[in-house]
Amino acid sequence: MIVAVDAAGGDFFPKNPVEGSLSAITENDDLTIILVGPEDSVNAELSKHEYDSSRVIVQDAPEIIGMEESPASAVRNKRNSSIVIGLGLHKGGACDAFVSAGNTGALLAASTFILGKLDGVSRPTIAAYYPTLKGFRLIVDAGANLEIRPEMAYQFSKMGQVFCEQILGIEDPKVGLLNVGEEDEKGTDELKEIHNHLKSLEGFIGNVEGRDIFSGKADVYLTDGLVGNIVLKLGESIPATIMTLVKSAVEKLDMEVEQVLAAQKILKTAMAPFNYETVGGIPFLGVNGVSIVGHGGSTPLAIKNMIKGAISCVQNDVNGKIVSSLN
Amino acid sequence: MIVAVDAAGGDFFPKNPVEGSLSAITENDDLTIILVGPEDSVNAELSKHEYDSSRVIVQDAPEIIGMEESPASAVRNKRNSSIVIGLGLHKGGACDAFVSAGNTGALLAASTFILGKLDGVSRPTIAAYYPTLKGFRLIVDAGANLEIRPEMAYQFSKMGQVFCEQILGIEDPKVGLLNVGEEDEKGTDELKEIHNHLKSLEGFIGNVEGRDIFSGKADVYLTDGLVGNIVLKLGESIPATIMTLVKSAVEKLDMEVEQVLAAQKILKTAMAPFNYETVGGIPFLGVNGVSIVGHGGSTPLAIKNMIKGAISCVQNDVNGKIVSSLN
Repeated sequence: MIVAVDAAGGDFFPKNPVEGSLSAITENDDLTIILVGPEDSVNAELSKHEYDSSRVIVQDAPEIIGMEESPASAVRNKRNSSIVIGLGLHKGGACDAFVSAGNTGALLAASTFILGKLDGVSRPTIAAYYPTLKGFRLIVDAGANLEIRPEMAYQFSKMGQVFCEQILGIEDPKVGLLNVGEEDEKGTDELKEIHNHLKSLEGFIGNVEGRDIFSGKADVYLTDGLVGNIVLKLGESIPATIMTLVKSAVEKLDMEVEQVLAAQKILKTAMAPFNYETVGGIPFLGVNGVSIVGHGGSTPLAIKNMIKGAISCVQNDVNGKIVSSLN
Repeated sequence: MIVAVDAAGGDFFPKNPVEGSLSAITENDDLTIILVGPEDSVNAELSKHEYDSSRVIVQDAPEIIGMEESPASAVRNKRNSSIVIGLGLHKGGACDAFVSAGNTGALLAASTFILGKLDGVSRPTIAAYYPTLKGFRLIVDAGANLEIRPEMAYQFSKMGQVFCEQILGIEDPKVGLLNVGEEDEKGTDELKEIHNHLKSLEGFIGNVEGRDIFSGKADVYLTDGLVGNIVLKLGESIPATIMTLVKSAVEKLDMEVEQVLAAQKILKTAMAPFNYETVGGIPFLGVNGVSIVGHGGSTPLAIKNMIKGAISCVQNDVNGKIVSSLN
């Protein structure tokens, strides 16, 4: 198993990608990592650690794609960036997967362009993990396709279901269409059309509302990339919001240090399901390869878990199962 | 000041509307309440309380509009419902405002139909309170118009700004357009068009993302009713979600009762900004009258605060200021 890791992506490179990769090879004897990034700085980071050097390859990629850079032009113009080179290695068969904490848009564009689409897939999609009371579930599409058509919605649902089954271990995953009400006839004309089209999908439970997300009513929350992206980022901001509110509550209330510590401990445990580090990254579904992107702020733990997620996609042949489910 | 209160709306009528109304007249010497609902049950509820009967009028309205009933047909067919009769009283000048915890769709339809639109307003909108670290701010549109056009977006923004200034006491309210990224060129063609159109709006701060809502980056989060409704309901589900997570954290951790109580106290204080009871209801902006709707589950406190909100709209002449701002 060979995974290429973007050593020039995210807010903390090369440190976090290097540390996450070394942690991954420690846990997995069959794993080799290709660190893709500016050779000198990657080697300088590696020299700080002791590791099995026979399982770590450095592939030079001197150009850096910034986190805010325009995806299309970055991919077009920076052929020596870690994203373009890393995905090229994957396309050429030099590795089984590519993971990155870099520019999501650039990764999606490059993944689609370089890896191509799976047989039968009309559009790749971003499936984002979302915390629920039942554990992480998926928001699909989480920002790749701002508008979706019925046949895209159907394919996205199918791909999300395969991912739920194979990677999250959910049997018979349920798909809910995010809408303003539960009744069939709710929503815009586009949503009604999508709803109608999804009726033939096994596991489709109909419309679900914003209040049904955290309860885990569905396993795949199907929506367009506009709603998905807004809902995703809103969700990501919840832990910090709660922590700020708790901090000012503690300042307001006159409480003993021990009580505050106890409350912090409870809250930390309670908010653990929101911790994206445990899942590490979100997959691009529908591309002809395994390409996983994580938060810009990914920690070494998050990167290690992204690598594990990628391995799991390869070992469970998620792509093969997507193709069979669609054809 | 005379406010008509829907005594047949919400999940707990006539109890909660009656109790909330009596609490409101206790706090406000100049207030008279018209309780609109099935006479017998309203009187039966009133008989349980002591109150200044010279300031409480019961207006019979025997028909009940259910919470899940189709709005248009309910309003068309149930002319003797509390919503239709109450708004008719308001239209006729018998009261200054109407508040209800009933069927939101029916209320919006009836408010638009019976009260009509303010001069210059193309479409009324629902402005929902949303909790942020700076206090409640507005999501506009929160479900009345699933699709919006640039000129609607402009009017909704203006109306939201007037409400922020007059009712929330926010100076120079900032309007942010909910989008998938901050850059001007982000989003669908429709969003780009809206963005362009809003450039001439004083206080427009450009695109904002899902992560910017809780931080209170804007005062009015402008979006279409589809996104607004989903974001609103997602937000409303957060307190119960956090409470459930905290409960299972407490079960998992081995902690002393005192510690748990301390944590509960902190959390309760921390989550107070999410408590919709303090604002009570959300206004329909753009209708020619004051019509406020609350949660189906509104408590007496929430209903009292809806009544206070309605009084505030009348006293501050929110509608007059909306008309001047648009014309």
